[in-house]
Amino acid sequence: MLLSDKFLEALKYEGSVAITSWGSEKVPHMTGTWISYLTLTDDGRLLAPAAGFTHLEADLATNDTILAMIGVREVEGYNGYQGIGFRLTAGAKLLENGTDFEDVKSAYPWCRKVLELTPIELEQLL
Amino acid sequence: MLLSDKFLEALKYEGSVAITSWGSEKVPHMTGTWISYLTLTDDGRLLAPAAGFTHLEADLATNDTILAMIGVREVEGYNGYQGIGFRLTAGAKLLENGTDFEDVKSAYPWCRKVLELTPIELEQLL
Repeated sequence: MLLSDKFLEALKYEGSVAITSWGSEKVPHMTGTWISYLTLTDDGRLLAPAAGFTHLEADLATNDTILAMIGVREVEGYNGYQGIGFRLTAGAKLLENGTDFEDVKSAYPWCRKVLELTPIELEQLL
Repeated sequence: MLLSDKFLEALKYEGSVAITSWGSEKVPHMTGTWISYLTLTDDGRLLAPAAGFTHLEADLATNDTILAMIGVREVEGYNGYQGIGFRLTAGAKLLENGTDFEDVKSAYPWCRKVLELTPIELEQLL
């Protein structure tokens, strides 16, 4: 799996997940979710319930690569630093059917679609 | 001040601050800091110590508007939701001298420059 043990450790804590998409307008767009809303699949994809995410959806129609940032203070980073942060480059899709969609929908009935992130590159920033 | 009371309340908690810049390359860039690293000035600007931020600096040479995301679970958002998230559009500069620079540098001696964010638009997302 492309995701590191330290990244998986960070997923055990709560915090915001910031997502940047681009493509539909001249400037990029940011939206977000919570770490606790993420589901890690057996094959290393991340799933998140999507309620709004309409601008993200418009961007994905043009460009399906996104950037995401996750940082938590509870996990130690490099050189004993108390905190860790990651920049994840991922392929993104909005699922509206299938097993992954149904699984997330059952946990978050308010979701419209399910954001599926397939990691491309993971950078530990600190 | 453009910043809302709810935003100022969120600044009292810890969490990641994700920053998106663009301009120097075809794709945007994300970097981050911590809420606890932010200093709010009397006139409503946010200051953050900048150690690396070299890609951000290259982007600012072309485009000095950035997006930032802050989300904390501890503050209540709309409709009783336990959590709040903001998307901030801001003008950004990297300061290397002056009172604001000196103040942040004295608190974070490892910083190379000081990121100054001047809020343009604040959106409460939830």
